[in-house]
Amino acid sequence: MNDKTIRIGLFGLGTVGQGIFSVIRRARNAHAEIRRICVRNLDKPRGIEVDPALLTTRPEDILADPEIDLIVELIDDAEASYAIVTEALRRGIPVVSGNKAMIARHLPELIELQRKHGTALLYDASSCGSIPVIRNLEEYYDNDLLLEVKGILNGSTNYILSRVFDHGENYDDALARAQQLGFAESDPSRDIEGLDSLFKLIIITVHALGVYVKPEDIFTYGIANIHDSDIRYAREKRVKIKLVAQVVKVSEEQFTMFVMPEFVEKNRYIYSVDDEYNGVVIRGECYDRQFMFGKGAGSLPTASSILSDVMARRYGYRYEYRKMSYAGLPHYTTDITLRVYIRYSTTEVTRLLPLRAIYEVYTSTESSYVIADICLADLMKYRDLLTAPDIFMCNIPMFFKDDD
Amino acid sequence: MNDKTIRIGLFGLGTVGQGIFSVIRRARNAHAEIRRICVRNLDKPRGIEVDPALLTTRPEDILADPEIDLIVELIDDAEASYAIVTEALRRGIPVVSGNKAMIARHLPELIELQRKHGTALLYDASSCGSIPVIRNLEEYYDNDLLLEVKGILNGSTNYILSRVFDHGENYDDALARAQQLGFAESDPSRDIEGLDSLFKLIIITVHALGVYVKPEDIFTYGIANIHDSDIRYAREKRVKIKLVAQVVKVSEEQFTMFVMPEFVEKNRYIYSVDDEYNGVVIRGECYDRQFMFGKGAGSLPTASSILSDVMARRYGYRYEYRKMSYAGLPHYTTDITLRVYIRYSTTEVTRLLPLRAIYEVYTSTESSYVIADICLADLMKYRDLLTAPDIFMCNIPMFFKDDD
Repeated sequence: MNDKTIRIGLFGLGTVGQGIFSVIRRARNAHAEIRRICVRNLDKPRGIEVDPALLTTRPEDILADPEIDLIVELIDDAEASYAIVTEALRRGIPVVSGNKAMIARHLPELIELQRKHGTALLYDASSCGSIPVIRNLEEYYDNDLLLEVKGILNGSTNYILSRVFDHGENYDDALARAQQLGFAESDPSRDIEGLDSLFKLIIITVHALGVYVKPEDIFTYGIANIHDSDIRYAREKRVKIKLVAQVVKVSEEQFTMFVMPEFVEKNRYIYSVDDEYNGVVIRGECYDRQFMFGKGAGSLPTASSILSDVMARRYGYRYEYRKMSYAGLPHYTTDITLRVYIRYSTTEVTRLLPLRAIYEVYTSTESSYVIADICLADLMKYRDLLTAPDIFMCNIPMFFKDDD
Repeated sequence: MNDKTIRIGLFGLGTVGQGIFSVIRRARNAHAEIRRICVRNLDKPRGIEVDPALLTTRPEDILADPEIDLIVELIDDAEASYAIVTEALRRGIPVVSGNKAMIARHLPELIELQRKHGTALLYDASSCGSIPVIRNLEEYYDNDLLLEVKGILNGSTNYILSRVFDHGENYDDALARAQQLGFAESDPSRDIEGLDSLFKLIIITVHALGVYVKPEDIFTYGIANIHDSDIRYAREKRVKIKLVAQVVKVSEEQFTMFVMPEFVEKNRYIYSVDDEYNGVVIRGECYDRQFMFGKGAGSLPTASSILSDVMARRYGYRYEYRKMSYAGLPHYTTDITLRVYIRYSTTEVTRLLPLRAIYEVYTSTESSYVIADICLADLMKYRDLLTAPDIFMCNIPMFFKDDD
């Protein structure tokens, strides 16, 4: 046991940074104290009262303070976050970070820095807010029985899709509401284009399979182009459209991963993951499917996850990245076939795309759609075409017939 | 990293013991090896082929073997389990155990033995099979924000209730099937009377709130007396009957806990936990509700959980029982009011029980019921009356209106 108070240097005082204040105040036995806060603008009005003496605009006031045990980095800007986190690690200061974009882009370097300087970077809050996905993949599913991690990783798009689907709301209104409630990032395009889910998926894959894949090598398709006719189609088929991120072992030697909207049937676990919630299905040999569900967005849920990482540091916890040194790590492949629904109007989808098999074609003056098989590698190749404003694509899960 | 093979001495070669064999074979990177197996009867026919040279009937062959790094204890008999586990801990040998009855009865002593002899006892498999509830409560929810843990902890009764409820099967047939599929314990009364759920709840409470409560001090009511008329009643009200275990903070200073059948409404997370599955809702300040769901019974799911504990030992993991030394631990109380449905025929329930308020009374020549408030302490006092063969009682959740 260690009852010493852990002294935190905080970077960023946005939604989650403010949440940390409330959470630490409520957790009486956490023995954590915020000693200094680095912000961009001292005079910005904030939702909480903070002693002005705690605030600074100079990172060095935290980085060079020998009384600070731990840095909590909650900056919205990935570049500034990268500079702070790498500098802290180089100085041997442990860091808890929630910046998925920065972590997903630089994870190999960040792992190397932790090793070299004997310090730790924890980031469970970066994936799925309050659900302890990373920690469980790292510690509990610490073996090679894992076959698949699949889930709804972005609370903001899920909230929007829920409002549109279940409440018949207009897309723009739903987006505005998500931002107002603090679920959406300051730049919502990152959520809507699937990038936020992608970053989380990259981090999850490192802890699930021990393999790092660069963002630009992964097919990512968001919900920006979703249209009334897609919603109508899904309703008729009694499925929901969810933005799903997944990493799947397709054989003993290979795995694939991608982020795409998906038609989700009623009997799937993720079907009932609505509003700002996240839900993750972990499938493995022997234990079959485990489902974890909780609030994936919002100030307090994310802050409580940050607190869990802070507490873990009291006991010297660090990710060991054990799976990365396993024998026979699977290789990433995009040479797999997906079945997709592509809705279009002016773009000649069936002529321009290398479809492998066409199962259904529906044409109308308003909007048409095709259901066809296509190779994931070809989806990557034709990414620009697929993001044309008249096109929306949705995955029809078929790989594992009893898939979740 | 540590690539040394971990050498296991196994006690018990029943359903889960046999599962361990398959799981270790499949997990190539586990580096675990079963070196010796202690069984009661060498000649008993088993579902798997085991090298006879591995088998012994003498515990000492494992306990005294300096080449054995870890004992995995999967004996069905709680007394034999207690003798082996305490002796192993006294000799400083770490143990992974799945015996919830033994652990729940002796946890304070087992914690003391771990401390005294600087060794470890891990038992995540003892609660909810493959769902990592204990590890998450211990490590991730390692703060005092936790308000409630509530769930379906027994796969076998849940399987029976699902068969009866959703498939219109007869109770005895469903029970026989559960045993045949390996979900039910060798003595099914432990499942059906709620004792298995109780033992798990006691273990969970130690890791959730840092407080140990003895089995005999906790109200436990099973499903043995469930009757067609109860099922009919529940169906009319569009609820399911589930056997639910819960520990709930009722104020800043107090918590309560009990195991009881409960009417579960459709909008609750645990409503859709069917068959042999387990589901646990963890509720806390800030993060609200988290739901964990997975296979709670069966050979391979439980064995994969044992493997997770074995792997954790490779890295010296042990439960720290940190919450037990928190300031201001809540006190256990049974002085709370529950609203219950009590079905009866000959016993004069409304006259004999100290009901606090009666909301509904239905009488008929066949069977009657009453819906009333009663103190949990009084339920304990009248436990014998309530288990009369003509009585079945079900909790109507009302404490937290938005409860799961």
